Amino acid sequence: MTHIALDEKILSMLRHHTSSYVSGEDLCKAFDVSRAAIWKHMEKMREEGYSIEASPHLGYRLLGVPDRLVPSEIRWKLKTKVLGKEVISYKKVGSTNDVAYALAEKGLKEGVIILAEEQDKGKGRHGRSWTSPSRGGIYLSAILRPRITPNEIPKITLLAAVAAAKAIREVTGLQAMIKWPNDILVSGKKVCGILTEMKAEQDSVSFIVIGIGINCNTPVRQLPKSASSLREELGLHARDEHVPRLELVKKLIEKLEEDYFLLKKDGFRPIMEEWKHLTDMLGARVRVVLQNRAFEGLAHNIDPDGALIVRKDAGTLERISSGDIIMIRQG
Amino acid sequence: MTHIALDEKILSMLRHHTSSYVSGEDLCKAFDVSRAAIWKHMEKMREEGYSIEASPHLGYRLLGVPDRLVPSEIRWKLKTKVLGKEVISYKKVGSTNDVAYALAEKGLKEGVIILAEEQDKGKGRHGRSWTSPSRGGIYLSAILRPRITPNEIPKITLLAAVAAAKAIREVTGLQAMIKWPNDILVSGKKVCGILTEMKAEQDSVSFIVIGIGINCNTPVRQLPKSASSLREELGLHARDEHVPRLELVKKLIEKLEEDYFLLKKDGFRPIMEEWKHLTDMLGARVRVVLQNRAFEGLAHNIDPDGALIVRKDAGTLERISSGDIIMIRQG
Repeated sequence: MTHIALDEKILSMLRHHTSSYVSGEDLCKAFDVSRAAIWKHMEKMREEGYSIEASPHLGYRLLGVPDRLVPSEIRWKLKTKVLGKEVISYKKVGSTNDVAYALAEKGLKEGVIILAEEQDKGKGRHGRSWTSPSRGGIYLSAILRPRITPNEIPKITLLAAVAAAKAIREVTGLQAMIKWPNDILVSGKKVCGILTEMKAEQDSVSFIVIGIGINCNTPVRQLPKSASSLREELGLHARDEHVPRLELVKKLIEKLEEDYFLLKKDGFRPIMEEWKHLTDMLGARVRVVLQNRAFEGLAHNIDPDGALIVRKDAGTLERISSGDIIMIRQG
Repeated sequence: MTHIALDEKILSMLRHHTSSYVSGEDLCKAFDVSRAAIWKHMEKMREEGYSIEASPHLGYRLLGVPDRLVPSEIRWKLKTKVLGKEVISYKKVGSTNDVAYALAEKGLKEGVIILAEEQDKGKGRHGRSWTSPSRGGIYLSAILRPRITPNEIPKITLLAAVAAAKAIREVTGLQAMIKWPNDILVSGKKVCGILTEMKAEQDSVSFIVIGIGINCNTPVRQLPKSASSLREELGLHARDEHVPRLELVKKLIEKLEEDYFLLKKDGFRPIMEEWKHLTDMLGARVRVVLQNRAFEGLAHNIDPDGALIVRKDAGTLERISSGDIIMIRQG
């Protein structure tokens, strides 16, 4: 962690002098380390994708930063108070949710963000898998410690869906739509999924891990048929055309915090109202698949606890708090 | 684990011949091990408190078993199908719930029982501590994997309270009374506490750990003022007078399974009815302490989700799913 900290300090100094050079000597003095140490850090940062010019006489200059999800880049000018104050990123993990969960159990505090470039055991709901190839995806988990009861947890999932849909819309311009409870679709295809997990006593949540997976620049051939990527939906095909992952991650973290603070301050109602504006499923025909039965009806509303209300064909309303929803396209 | 298994096999053979001897040779043949190995196991079992007679000519004979919570004794003639099929016991742990939780995360299956002779971080609700000295207590955690939603978790706590109250009543004859949500009292003093913890997604529980702490033969001077031990409440003071811990643990595991299977088969209603017969708090005056406020009233009922219904002095009913209840003694 000290190395990362020094990297961030060096970067910060370089960022303040992008039109000029920072001499090796100044860096040595500023951080009380040797020239060899500075050089080593520069090499490390170059390996991470930073473009750093080194002139023997003038010193170092920052030419470009990578679109990589490294903590220093994510935290740079991040407009949050709690979320992302600590960011831990991995090349590859089993599942960012599992890593975040284990860290939360060790006591890591609210707001810590875990990221990975690849997951080999990416998780969906109910033990399903979430395809998480190494090129271009966003796999993010956040630790939250709200003072809520376990039955309030659906609110957190819906909040995360609202934040993710807004972040995707703002950064890409795509009409991201929420599908209850935990998916974000573009043109009917899944581009983002959310998995909320918690440790709880019977009447109080100890911590929550929100996992968000976004198919950002992920090659579509590596995704399931029902899924797409933001890059694909934007029609970007040239080699150098990509959705800015870093910008999207930062926006996502900012939106998450904004909505989380809103929930704490004003309760679930404003989130619920936003949710309704970010979905096109209310009024649509759906098939509800529960543990022991299935039925069709019209998605009618969400209720103040985050459950989906479905109007069955017989006219009665049924409250769905657990289950899968299949959208029925009508010709 | 292989050692434990061999111990159990040897014990089983000795148990079938308590009026005669089992020769070392027979044991060697039966388990295909050397005489030295048999001798080593006998020594180990003696250290665990077994009284084993060894006659050079006749062989070994079991004279007595310890009132110790060792897996072999607990599993001996245990009348269960799932709970206690695997028992893991420790001399001392931080908290049996933490150990069980970590094992459940590693995939250990439903029914595993964790026991310790002592806890140095025994846990109560909401981060409180549970006094767990080394002499005479029962500290037990069970892993369950029911297919339920997180908001059904109070049912599991109440079920555990019913099982614990019945086990205590049957083994000691004491009038154990449940105090909502998670305590068992005898003569108004706490003798048992229950802590239910879970890992869950928003709509499905991954696993539950039920922790049950019983002040069985615990010296009362080591307990908080509001607590007592079963031994104390039975008026046992002579050095050799003790509540049979082993019998109580076995009864507890059996009752837990019985009620758990009942819940799965017939739902919560029969458990709820039993609960009502095992409490004296319904109709009693209580003080309800919530996160932000407190009030008094009469404990009126529990509802089908396991919440406590309190009739406030103004006559209105309030549903309590989280909070502390203080019994108000009158007269």
